[in-house]
Amino acid sequence: MNAEVIAVGSELLLGQIANTNGQFLSQQLAGVGFNVYRHTVVGDNWERMRTAFEEASERADVVFVTGGLGPTQDDLTKEVIAELTEKPLQYHEETLNNIKQFFAKRKRPMSANNKKQAHCTEGSHVFYNGAGLACGMADVYKETMFILLPGPPRELKYMYEHEVQPYLAKKMPQDAVVLSRVLRFFHIGESRLEKELIDLIYNQSNPTIAPLASEGEVTIRLTAKAQTATEANHMLDKTETLITDKVGHYLYGKEKDTLPVQVVKAFTNDKKTLAAAESLTGGWFGKHIVDVPGASAVFEGSLTAYSSSAKIKLLNISSQLIDQYGTVSKECAEAMAEKARQQYQTDVGISFTGAAGPEALEGKEPGTVWIGIADQHGVTAHELHLAGSRESIRRLAVYYGCWFLLKEKVVNK
Amino acid sequence: MNAEVIAVGSELLLGQIANTNGQFLSQQLAGVGFNVYRHTVVGDNWERMRTAFEEASERADVVFVTGGLGPTQDDLTKEVIAELTEKPLQYHEETLNNIKQFFAKRKRPMSANNKKQAHCTEGSHVFYNGAGLACGMADVYKETMFILLPGPPRELKYMYEHEVQPYLAKKMPQDAVVLSRVLRFFHIGESRLEKELIDLIYNQSNPTIAPLASEGEVTIRLTAKAQTATEANHMLDKTETLITDKVGHYLYGKEKDTLPVQVVKAFTNDKKTLAAAESLTGGWFGKHIVDVPGASAVFEGSLTAYSSSAKIKLLNISSQLIDQYGTVSKECAEAMAEKARQQYQTDVGISFTGAAGPEALEGKEPGTVWIGIADQHGVTAHELHLAGSRESIRRLAVYYGCWFLLKEKVVNK
Repeated sequence: MNAEVIAVGSELLLGQIANTNGQFLSQQLAGVGFNVYRHTVVGDNWERMRTAFEEASERADVVFVTGGLGPTQDDLTKEVIAELTEKPLQYHEETLNNIKQFFAKRKRPMSANNKKQAHCTEGSHVFYNGAGLACGMADVYKETMFILLPGPPRELKYMYEHEVQPYLAKKMPQDAVVLSRVLRFFHIGESRLEKELIDLIYNQSNPTIAPLASEGEVTIRLTAKAQTATEANHMLDKTETLITDKVGHYLYGKEKDTLPVQVVKAFTNDKKTLAAAESLTGGWFGKHIVDVPGASAVFEGSLTAYSSSAKIKLLNISSQLIDQYGTVSKECAEAMAEKARQQYQTDVGISFTGAAGPEALEGKEPGTVWIGIADQHGVTAHELHLAGSRESIRRLAVYYGCWFLLKEKVVNK
Repeated sequence: MNAEVIAVGSELLLGQIANTNGQFLSQQLAGVGFNVYRHTVVGDNWERMRTAFEEASERADVVFVTGGLGPTQDDLTKEVIAELTEKPLQYHEETLNNIKQFFAKRKRPMSANNKKQAHCTEGSHVFYNGAGLACGMADVYKETMFILLPGPPRELKYMYEHEVQPYLAKKMPQDAVVLSRVLRFFHIGESRLEKELIDLIYNQSNPTIAPLASEGEVTIRLTAKAQTATEANHMLDKTETLITDKVGHYLYGKEKDTLPVQVVKAFTNDKKTLAAAESLTGGWFGKHIVDVPGASAVFEGSLTAYSSSAKIKLLNISSQLIDQYGTVSKECAEAMAEKARQQYQTDVGISFTGAAGPEALEGKEPGTVWIGIADQHGVTAHELHLAGSRESIRRLAVYYGCWFLLKEKVVNK
């Protein structure tokens, strides 16, 4: 089944909001076996809406339209569909009663335009709106099904989950299950990853293999279609093994298990505790760890010592060390990691120091980063040369800190 | 000038990310007088991209295409434009050198597909990428200008601001100046702000007044068209005064001066120093401050004490205080702010403690937040009841911390 999503609303074209409805529907539809080939955004304009609807009807089996169901003059979606299908609009009684009750309850007068929200084309299937006033509907134009849904994201989600999904399930072929799996990689670029997997990517159509680079990491989404969930899972397992045979060293997690989540899990499993001393990252490492539910069991805290004097006062780093080696140095990173471990009395201490740019710091190029890790066996430090903005360098430093904690076997040893 | 935005990327059609590039470009283009009539998202597919480009060329004067400039086989945007314009692709020397240097610096081998990122059609205008590797370009197909930009939002923003905006300014009619001004508000909701300004918003068409709510704050973008910059600025000044007469109390900054930027500016002007003690926010306040260039002159650091024992060990909060009042309390917030000030030896100390949820903490509902501020005159604490996810509650807490620092006249007094 080929689908398209059309979002109606001038506020989208002015950039006041992003089209998160398109994203939501795409996620949902990919999960139930639809191929979504296009998103379109048009303004609240009769001619431009009509053109977009007609174009989509020539390409897609199902067109999902969001927005334009409200009470104002601008809201035109049902009216345009009525013109295309050459059907009259009528009131959906249940929805109309809801709207009347809504105003009666609030002792507010109901202006006439509110009745518009109960409109549906003759003979259409109506979707009840459990989170707002305007009903949705499904009707057919030139063999393409148009599914009209409200624009407010909360109403859209409610209607999709409670009304549209069951409706589509009945319409869909019963012999297809679509399952997805996300694999997460670090310390390998997208182009390198793809080069390693190029044969696999070319020769596989089911499961599909889709790499995606985001800030500092690369994910691969595998999607399998099969007759049963067992079969789909088996196919995913097989492809995952082919991938990990080649680039397994860089795989650190699956689905929503980000690097900080994996760190908290590993420390929790090992019953070990963690603390940090941050300069470069200014507290962002701690923030990433604290974001993970359950972090309080393993994370004691982080001490941000941004200035040299704070490093001396709060971390008891000796001023001689700073004079001799500077703060962007192996020696300072190691001392910071040790002091974090001592002061918070944890099993492991980690430290971040470096030059985030835009200027060089102590003669060190922007992107020069030292990460120290101290545990009961001693202390080590890693030097990195990272590229990008201040923000990117800091984010990557945090991720590398997590990566070293996981890979250096500070935990699990 | 009529414009359209086409975002290329299967990850958008799978719902892995929202089309925030379309939103960003729409915001920018509205500010310089473009009418954006359509957004389209298509996958990384030659035929579907070609069709979308051709359709857009029939409607728009300028088409902005984002994505598909990367090194992989999937990245096809420049190749499709080359086919349409019937021009050969060639290498942009400066970009090619950048790519080579990027790999040389990191002592990593450059795979051949990376050179693709330096492609441009013969005779096109090339946009330099100061935040990544792939160059952008502008070329004309059937009288429509196609502007190709990178997909990663950071690269897109950089290229738009530094390269595309000046390029467009030269192309735009010279008899109109369009100037924008952003006013930033905090501690007032979008609907409240709009209600206060409703008459202004309805009666003004030049400058236009566009409120926009984002995470925790509301901005208003004023856009004036005039024959000269002086005239446009005069119009903006007049409208700004009308707005501040009504809601000036909530105005904290303009343009890109976010709350953390304003805090760093105020402390810099006053030659005062700042340190923090963080529990709830886990280091995120410090991160926000450190993000501001020049923060090192005023910010000594932040001590994250996530557990009670860390509060006792590192901040020397008495265990009796914690036993008696709990950590989510006025008393604990005040003690934390004082200890931060003492330990870092700064003029001002600020503290964050509270329950981020999803569960209650020490019997306090999620969203209960205490922010303490200590200076030479003593210590105070503010209680907040915030709504939203863990992330939202933390972000709002950080913003309120900045707001209190600015409004409580800790600085400037």
